This record gives sequence, C-alpha cells and structure tokens, in this order.
Amino acid sequence: MPIEKREIIPVWDAVTKVLKYQLELSLETVSLEESDGRYLGEDILATHDVPPFDRSPYDGFAIRAEDTSAATQEQPVELNVIDSIGAGHVSGKEIKHNEAIRIMTGAAIPKGANAVIMLELVSEKENNRITISRKVKAGDNISRQGEDTPEGTTILKTGTRIHPGVTAILATFGFHTVKVYKKPVVGILATGTELLDVDEELVPGKIRNSNAYMIASQIKKIGGEPRILGKLPDDLEETYEGILQAMKETDLVITTGGVSVGDFDHLPAIYKKMGAELLFNKIAMRPGSVTSAAMFEGKPLFGLSGNPSACFVGFELFVRPYLLQSLHVKKVHLGAVTATLQKDYLKPNPFTRFIRSRVEWNGPTAVASPVGLDKSGSVSSLSEANALIVLPGGTRGWEKGSQVMTLLLEGEGSVWPWDQALKSRS
Amino acid sequence: MPIEKREIIPVWDAVTKVLKYQLELSLETVSLEESDGRYLGEDILATHDVPPFDRSPYDGFAIRAEDTSAATQEQPVELNVIDSIGAGHVSGKEIKHNEAIRIMTGAAIPKGANAVIMLELVSEKENNRITISRKVKAGDNISRQGEDTPEGTTILKTGTRIHPGVTAILATFGFHTVKVYKKPVVGILATGTELLDVDEELVPGKIRNSNAYMIASQIKKIGGEPRILGKLPDDLEETYEGILQAMKETDLVITTGGVSVGDFDHLPAIYKKMGAELLFNKIAMRPGSVTSAAMFEGKPLFGLSGNPSACFVGFELFVRPYLLQSLHVKKVHLGAVTATLQKDYLKPNPFTRFIRSRVEWNGPTAVASPVGLDKSGSVSSLSEANALIVLPGGTRGWEKGSQVMTLLLEGEGSVWPWDQALKSRS
Repeated sequence: MPIEKREIIPVWDAVTKVLKYQLELSLETVSLEESDGRYLGEDILATHDVPPFDRSPYDGFAIRAEDTSAATQEQPVELNVIDSIGAGHVSGKEIKHNEAIRIMTGAAIPKGANAVIMLELVSEKENNRITISRKVKAGDNISRQGEDTPEGTTILKTGTRIHPGVTAILATFGFHTVKVYKKPVVGILATGTELLDVDEELVPGKIRNSNAYMIASQIKKIGGEPRILGKLPDDLEETYEGILQAMKETDLVITTGGVSVGDFDHLPAIYKKMGAELLFNKIAMRPGSVTSAAMFEGKPLFGLSGNPSACFVGFELFVRPYLLQSLHVKKVHLGAVTATLQKDYLKPNPFTRFIRSRVEWNGPTAVASPVGLDKSGSVSSLSEANALIVLPGGTRGWEKGSQVMTLLLEGEGSVWPWDQALKSRS
Repeated sequence: MPIEKREIIPVWDAVTKVLKYQLELSLETVSLEESDGRYLGEDILATHDVPPFDRSPYDGFAIRAEDTSAATQEQPVELNVIDSIGAGHVSGKEIKHNEAIRIMTGAAIPKGANAVIMLELVSEKENNRITISRKVKAGDNISRQGEDTPEGTTILKTGTRIHPGVTAILATFGFHTVKVYKKPVVGILATGTELLDVDEELVPGKIRNSNAYMIASQIKKIGGEPRILGKLPDDLEETYEGILQAMKETDLVITTGGVSVGDFDHLPAIYKKMGAELLFNKIAMRPGSVTSAAMFEGKPLFGLSGNPSACFVGFELFVRPYLLQSLHVKKVHLGAVTATLQKDYLKPNPFTRFIRSRVEWNGPTAVASPVGLDKSGSVSSLSEANALIVLPGGTRGWEKGSQVMTLLLEGEGSVWPWDQALKSRS
C-alpha cells in the first residue's frame, strides 16, 4: 500500500478543526470528599441566603438603637443585660425597652434588637448592667440575612473544576454529594517494534515505552481516565484491528509513534481503511509535524509522534483542549504569558516551534529559558520544564531579550486567541 | 479557667518557628501508574546510558566515512546496500568497503559503520545501489551511547513531585514501581457548637462545617491524606480529650474555630493542659491573627481560625510548607509574583493583610485584583481567587497602580524570602 500524502496546515487550523467536536459525557454523583479535581455537571445555586439569618459580625451587645438616642459621653444610658448568646445558640428572650443581650460573632440577632454595639465601646457594670455613651443607629453591625448571596443565586457554573475554594462553597450549601461529568476514558496505543514494556530489560536496539505512561499522567492531571492498551507492531492489519478494538472500549484513542515518514508509516492508510474522517495529518510545527487526528463514529483518534517532546506537546495542544471542552471547561487551552527570552535561540525556524522551557518571575515580569537544548539536558528537561516557548515559523531565530509567548503547563488555562503566530502557514 | 494571654509575632517568625520541625515520613513502593502527585522518596539515577546504544537520529544510510573521501558532485561514489534496519531491529551484518545499510530513525548503528548520511542526500539506484556526491566525516549523524546522560547520573532528586515529565523519565529508566514518601495523615477537628454537618438541614443560628471540607481539599491538593474527625463542642474537657485522641491517630492535627477572643476560647488553655510546646498563638496578620501552633510529642497541632478566609490562608501559610518540608520538597512556600494592583484598596492596614485575589497576565506583566471585597462577592470569591495579595502592615491603604506582592495558589512554589513585609511586627 502506498504511503498517503500528508498536507500541512497551521497549528491554529488544527486546533480549530479538533474543537468542532466534543464528547457527550454523562453525569455521575460522587461524595463531596471524592470530588476533588472533578468538573461540575450542573450549575450550583445557593440553597439558602448568606448569611442564613441576621447575625452579628462582632462580639458585643444586641440592643434597640432607640434606647441610645440620648446617650452622650457625659450622660451615658444604662441597659439591663438579660441574656448571653454564643455562636450556634438562639436566645429565647426578646429585648424590650432599655434591655440588651450579650452576643458573640456569628450569633443570631435576638428578637426586639435592631443594632449591635461592639464590646469595646461598652462599659460593663455590676448586676448585669452596661452603659453606652454614644448614639447607635438602627441596623448598625447587623449582617442581614441574604445580603452576601440571596437564595437561588448561581454561585458555581457547570464545568468548574472542584478545588478547595469550590469545596468550601459546596459544603456551605449542604452538597454532601455532587453531580460531576464522568471521566473521559482515553485509550493509549503505542506503535513500534522498538518498544519494550517498562518492566522489560533493555535489549540492543530497543527502548522502553515511556510515552504511554507520560500521556497517562497528562490525562490524569486534567481529570481523565487513561487506559494503557499496550503496543502494536509496525504491521498494517494488526494495527488496524487494534485501533478498532480500542475505539470500541474507550471515548477517545491516542496512538504514539508509527507516524514517521519512513518505511513503516501506516497511520494515514489506516484512517482511510477505517473510513475515518481525517481532520489533519501534518501540522506546521516542530516538534510533532507528523501529528494527525481523525473522527470515527463520533469519537476522535489522535496520532501523536513517537518522539517524547512531540508527543507531550501534541497532547497539550490538541488532546487537552478537546477533553476539557467535553468537560464544559471555559478556558480549555494552556495559560499564555508573554516573557522575555533569557538565551539566544538562533536555530532557523521553518515551522512554529514549541520549546520546553522554564518560566520564572523576575519582579513583575516573566522570563523564559529553554531547558534541555544541550544534549546533556534532554532527559532532565522533561522534569524541569513548566512552560512551552512558542516561536513563530519563518524566522531565522530569536535573540536574548526578545519578547516571546509562553504556554504555562500549570495553573489556569486561557481562551483563544493566544497569538497570531499559530496562524502561520510556516 | 482564665483566658491565656496571646503574644503577637510577625508572619515571618511564625513560619520560621513552624519550619524548625518536620515529620519523619516512611517510604512505600507504588506502581508507576499510581504515583502521580506523590513525592520521590529517593534520588533516581540513570539505569542505563542515554542513548542506550549508538543510534541514528535520521532516516538514512549507515556507511563508512572513508568510502566517501573522494566523493564530489561530478564524481559521486557508489555503495552497495546490504541490509535495511527498522527501529527496534539490529542488523546481523557488518559493513565492509563500499557497503551501506539503510537505517531508520532511532535504529542502532550497524557494525563497521562510522557515519550516517541522511536519506535526502543520497540517490537510490537500481540493484540496491546508492550514490553519494559529498564527503561525509566519521561520526556524522551518530547519536553516541551515553552522550545525553551517562548511566549513574542523578536525574531526579528526592522530594520531586511526580508529574507527566517525571513519569516519562521513570518509564524510560524502567521504574515500573517507585519509592515515594507515605502520605502524611492530617486530622481535622472543627470546634464550635454553631456547626452542622454538611448533610444536616440548616437550623436557626447554625451554619454548616465548610472549613473541614475545604482544608481536606487543600491537603489532598498537596498530596496529603486528610481525616475529617468531626467536631468538638465548646467545652474544655471534651475538646482536650478529642485533640489528644486525634493526635494519636494522625501525623498532624488541625483545629478550626474555637480560637476567637470571646467567652469560649479554650485553645491556649488546652495547649497548656497538654503540656504542648507553644510555638505562637497570635500573628500580626489579617485575616487570621488568632492562629496558633504547638508541638506535642513530636507532632504539630495547628489552631486555625473558624473564619473561612482566615482558615484558608492559615493553611497555605503555615501548614502547607510544614507538610511539603516533611515530604522533602525544596520550594515549600506559595509561588510569589509582583503584580500591579488594579483597584484601590484603601482600608487602613494595621496588620499585614492577605487578600483573596485574581492574578492575570496583561502581556508581560502580572496584574492583581482583590475578589469578593464587596459583600455580594464574598461567597464566589472562594472559587475565583487564584492568588493572595500581600499588603504589609502599618499602612493606610494602597492605590490602584501600586506594585504588590502576590502569592499564587497554583503552580510551583518558592523559597524564602518572599518579601520584607512578612517581617513586619504590625
């Protein structure tokens, strides 16, 4: 079978083609304690007013403001303290003329009271009496029921990822269980006879299948469920059968390797044999130009490069936003920051280049350094990189001090457009 | 029992006191696939050279450089192709005078060859013959065994958190299991009769115990194991017994609430009764000035505020670095970035203030906006904040445009010192 022709498209177009689709993920209910890192499957509305009742923001005395109307330094008024309320307790008593109730922060305002005076502004006397030497206005120091958030307000949106702050809100409103999207199940197939399993001894000519584990970790990081489905030999028929089977068992399939332009590049032929709708099979980027994607029976199939850097970048640029869009996340792309390049990068740049890098903050500005450019750093760069520098194609290289776009591997995402660079045909 | 006196210390001192101690966590072995988010319990050394054998970085032909010494455009040399090697295969043949072997990217250099010429620079003729019209130097296009990383090189340090890039390295070197620190077990006790469980109906005067769930989520985020141990009433003896029991069952105990300066503040008295070594019980910060820590039988006990913002901040400033130090992490504090304040913050600032905020990147500079300052935003601020703005104490407020320090809630940490602000006695 002849090798299929690969037509090159810009990164921007490739991302856009992928994001025309999304998975329909069903919902499941999990306990609040098991919900960390999951994505809300429904908008959350306030189930009660916040505060849930009129309450005191300070330790002090609940009073009737009108009883202080004549109070001055010279002629303080004297009130009779008839009760004391701790947080969580409610007084059974009602305040009448010239009476007060001692109240703690967060406790409910008792009947009859219309203001709170802070502890420090009161003189406590014997026989449960206090004196007040200033006028207090009705409503002073009362946190009103519902003034922060009225019942029924939308407080969290579908697609919000659950983190500690979200957990606090869910607990406040009594959600001991929460509806979340089911985790998308992602099958991972490595192709290439050169690959050993991780627990196999090295033999001449072979290397271990690290990409499958790396991708599995990338999937877990964004809340998906990876299935490492093993490896396929460089054989057309077996690869075809293996991919078909994987697509039946999962929501999405990623293959790595088997996409070089050498003798054994069967992937385009396999898409054709499957009758899959090819989205693209070559992208104007480095590393990873021979990255492909296709749709088959409503599910996507991504063909990532076998080169570890290209494989990593391909996942972050194409698979990640597809999965996050399916989880109803708003900012599906990596976060983007402009940074000052700290080293010359003088390689000619025929295609838009994505370089594993470290971004750090130097006072108020971000600075970016490629990691692992020298050969000795190429292994450790996998652990040290926290960003990708994006260098638009068609240039002769970049000098130290240039402003470059970087994509952050941690933290919040971003929305399009990042940069015109990604529209580059070169 | 009288209320114990609380002596105030700067944030800096409080953090320093906490970090004089750390837990001794034992190691456990987990599978590579279950190791995401865990911390390496040993340095990882390269178990083999990278590359593991001399290999070809390109598709091409393995040759003897000396056979091309007379090659020119006008007088190309002709070589006999005796074999073809795919990645993962090893040729059984040895190259002799005027012979070549076709080789694919990543395949091992065959015996007798000392260079590779790229496919594009070769003309393929009939009868397995190629012509080369330029001189090739010995060593050209050979990736030498060990040139990236020699066997025995330390490639990952103890305390490294396992993320996709680290996973790739571990897989490459055959670590199908990995030694990691056991997760520190953190007990969470809420104090306060005003607290309901999350699944309880609201009743007058009470609120749900959201802090425990929030802290549990904060603990899980950094790779600890939370145990929500329920709540204690505002009773000295019961609280004392509950804390003692919790300290037996866990590595570290956090209490929330019960630390207000009102009538029911028993925590300092309980530390005394336990014979715990008090580290501090008041800090020059807002929110959360009544935050305490003590050591008891080699384990720490943190008394965080019952106020949700103060509780959140107290965990991030004091408990987080303690746990990460125990896990042998290098950068145990929140990451620090200087940002431009986007709104006036004109409240007088007697103590160093930590404000829930959003930091975003505006081109190359970070900008920071407090969230939830208006009452209506106070609930949603819990989900929207991605940073804390730090405003040093002793000021009258800050104007829009000021440069302020922010601590990021996501991404990499930082090392001391962040800023002189935290040394402030006010």
